[in-house]
Amino acid sequence: MAAPTSVYFAARLAAIPAKTSRFRTTLLTRNVLPCINRSVLLHQRRSFSAESSPSLTQITQVDGIRKITLSNPKKRNALSLAMLTEVTKELTRDVDGGDLRAIIIASEGPVYSAGHDLKELTTGTGRAYHAQVFKKCSEMMMLVEDLPIPVIAQVKGLATAAGCQLVASCDIAVAADTARFATPGISVGLFCSTPAVALGRSVPKKIAMQMLLTAEPISAEDALKHGLVSKVVPEEAVEEETMKIAKKICEYSGSVISLGKACFNSQMKMDRNSAYDHASDVMVNNLSLVEGQEGINAFVNKRSPVWRHGFDKAHE
Amino acid sequence: MAAPTSVYFAARLAAIPAKTSRFRTTLLTRNVLPCINRSVLLHQRRSFSAESSPSLTQITQVDGIRKITLSNPKKRNALSLAMLTEVTKELTRDVDGGDLRAIIIASEGPVYSAGHDLKELTTGTGRAYHAQVFKKCSEMMMLVEDLPIPVIAQVKGLATAAGCQLVASCDIAVAADTARFATPGISVGLFCSTPAVALGRSVPKKIAMQMLLTAEPISAEDALKHGLVSKVVPEEAVEEETMKIAKKICEYSGSVISLGKACFNSQMKMDRNSAYDHASDVMVNNLSLVEGQEGINAFVNKRSPVWRHGFDKAHE
Amino acid sequence: MAAPTSVYFAARLAAIPAKTSRFRTTLLTRNVLPCINRSVLLHQRRSFSAESSPSLTQITQVDGIRKITLSNPKKRNALSLAMLTEVTKELTRDVDGGDLRAIIIASEGPVYSAGHDLKELTTGTGRAYHAQVFKKCSEMMMLVEDLPIPVIAQVKGLATAAGCQLVASCDIAVAADTARFATPGISVGLFCSTPAVALGRSVPKKIAMQMLLTAEPISAEDALKHGLVSKVVPEEAVEEETMKIAKKICEYSGSVISLGKACFNSQMKMDRNSAYDHASDVMVNNLSLVEGQEGINAFVNKRSPVWRHGFDKAHE
Repeated sequence: MAAPTSVYFAARLAAIPAKTSRFRTTLLTRNVLPCINRSVLLHQRRSFSAESSPSLTQITQVDGIRKITLSNPKKRNALSLAMLTEVTKELTRDVDGGDLRAIIIASEGPVYSAGHDLKELTTGTGRAYHAQVFKKCSEMMMLVEDLPIPVIAQVKGLATAAGCQLVASCDIAVAADTARFATPGISVGLFCSTPAVALGRSVPKKIAMQMLLTAEPISAEDALKHGLVSKVVPEEAVEEETMKIAKKICEYSGSVISLGKACFNSQMKMDRNSAYDHASDVMVNNLSLVEGQEGINAFVNKRSPVWRHGFDKAHE
Repeated sequence: MAAPTSVYFAARLAAIPAKTSRFRTTLLTRNVLPCINRSVLLHQRRSFSAESSPSLTQITQVDGIRKITLSNPKKRNALSLAMLTEVTKELTRDVDGGDLRAIIIASEGPVYSAGHDLKELTTGTGRAYHAQVFKKCSEMMMLVEDLPIPVIAQVKGLATAAGCQLVASCDIAVAADTARFATPGISVGLFCSTPAVALGRSVPKKIAMQMLLTAEPISAEDALKHGLVSKVVPEEAVEEETMKIAKKICEYSGSVISLGKACFNSQMKMDRNSAYDHASDVMVNNLSLVEGQEGINAFVNKRSPVWRHGFDKAHE
Repeated sequence: MAAPTSVYFAARLAAIPAKTSRFRTTLLTRNVLPCINRSVLLHQRRSFSAESSPSLTQITQVDGIRKITLSNPKKRNALSLAMLTEVTKELTRDVDGGDLRAIIIASEGPVYSAGHDLKELTTGTGRAYHAQVFKKCSEMMMLVEDLPIPVIAQVKGLATAAGCQLVASCDIAVAADTARFATPGISVGLFCSTPAVALGRSVPKKIAMQMLLTAEPISAEDALKHGLVSKVVPEEAVEEETMKIAKKICEYSGSVISLGKACFNSQMKMDRNSAYDHASDVMVNNLSLVEGQEGINAFVNKRSPVWRHGFDKAHE
């Protein structure tokens, strides 16, 4: 990497919306963290788990692609407080290091994720604990969107409730043709109100309402038709297809990917005219980067670009 | 019902967005209304009509499912002021009674509804009358969304203009594969501006614009593809499928359905972060209800839940 | 035309959102411009080009339908500053004249448009020039939406980056089944941030993100499924189908089309309740026009309407 990590770090931060202040603060106080060595397989089962609890995820990272596998199939990969804590840690770990280019959230077993662990939501655990669970969960879902790294859901099996919400929150979702999606909370007297925040922003209202009010699942094909996932492939091809997309993203400049993802999410919150003002500024800034000029120069001269993945300036 | 009607009534009210103040006020001033007896078929043709005019709808109510059938096939089920008044009355009647769980809006004859009665919209009737018609119509469409009860459109035949708007305004829509949808006002010099409010919030902009600018109908299959309806079945199955969905909704807790529907619509008006704050609060409150704890307990113990359809608290 | 041009002109202006003030001012200062003669073929190659540069478009206008053909196939119909200037001129030329009813944006050659001319975006041309290009481009895209005339994209071949943005910005888009759509800026280190403004408002977020982050094209069929285009036909039929839609629009009242398009875009920026208030007002005003009453009278009396394309009042 040509750009010093600290420049990269600062620029990545700048790309993060101001309102995700906890994330910014965390990163700022950690200052510059060591980079992950490229091409080193970090098979870290049981190494990043919450203290005093067994690990619920499997983590690998190869060539800039981190794969977080939900690995608690006996509990249908429930998004318990411990699981949410682990996934959050993996989403943010060394995100500012510069080597990380894409994150995949995959699963082990027949269920992608069945959402919250209902045993954590009884009168016994109490209101304050429930509030903590939903706070942690909402923060993780928003983090997926606000991270400067693309996050891809690789979905096999059933994704329900907060599991469906996780799919809806990812930037890209590749589903097996046998996958199914549901928000069935109403069947246990707990309407999927928080999953509906992500679902309602992904699919037409009528599709969301039918899922929420009937608890019935929809097929992968219907999920694609309505925008909940972006690709459906045969079950045996889902891993290969997801990796293909992640590798494609890794071919590009990581710094430009991060500013682009941040710009997309920012401008979508604005009215159209403000969105154009903002996006035009981002375009002009993007062109002032070494990365932007390298890409154009390579294209014009019919050669492959060489990315530095940084935010160095080519001109003011 | 375990919960006294007045508690149920107050809680239902709380679930209604504050801005539908006329509806709230109406309910509040009526105070506590008698419940509809369960399992009693109320075949009320000619009994709920506007004074001095023949009834334009047929009403049945069985096991919590009210079916409002638009029954003026000679006038293609036009949404005349009288029809709008009748349907509004049926949508709000005893909505706070506790027995009502789902509303179906069906039709008699080959046309679901052809929208406004153009004979009511001439220079002869005048501007003040026109304004009254559109006020009444918009209020009814918003009421469908704001009611604490799910409303399902059962669509056979052609749904045009305000008829198409009605389909777009329902929470769920089941269409016959032979149904068609259009906003053809422009062909009579009256652009479908109010239907476009609901249509534009249901389907992608380009689909809405093509329908509005060309007046051409779209098929049921295209309506499903673009989110205007949530289910398409063969024409002979549309009644059975609609009833199946309504019965499915009736299997769940009516109070949780009402808070869920209200939360969905509220949070969709907010930015994402506020939406998560609001929906998380609703989740925590949902869990504090007897209904929420009953559902979880039944699930954990592999038994069927027994709903009280109320808002009693299990814990603070 | 029964209505004097000045009345028509003022009413068209009123239909244009206030914020497009440059456009309004231009029109106002030009005051009353001569109408285009009906049924006169204006084949104006090389006549409306930017001064001192060869023309990049071909223009025809027959029976109220203006066809702007992007005609620089050697440069893949790049949206250079000169091209943007020409297209903008053609979009606004005599728009207040009264004869113009629909605009088609078509293309010559195997590429619909490849977006910006990258040679205009180098360090050599500099930041101020880049800013000018994106300002001009954003203004043209917003103009397509804000014009009181429907704009139809007729898409053959590949539409990429700002070319894809142009398709997304049109009111209606007819695509050949062989057409493809992409936002591949990331592959040259320039994220498609401004195209994403239009794309993100046309298709579900996940589809937009997959296109933006991978640079991979989507098929015409997928573009239709997700709302980027409104019609797909075999390649050999795309011209005929586009013309059929334009002619259909020309069958209607031009003044009512213009108020309807403006109302659609205005109300979509509002919350639902305000949208209904606004659209109801527009409906009541629409009914007070000679056009509205003529349409209803013709319908009731089973005759064809005779449009005046004006804003004369039938009643107050």
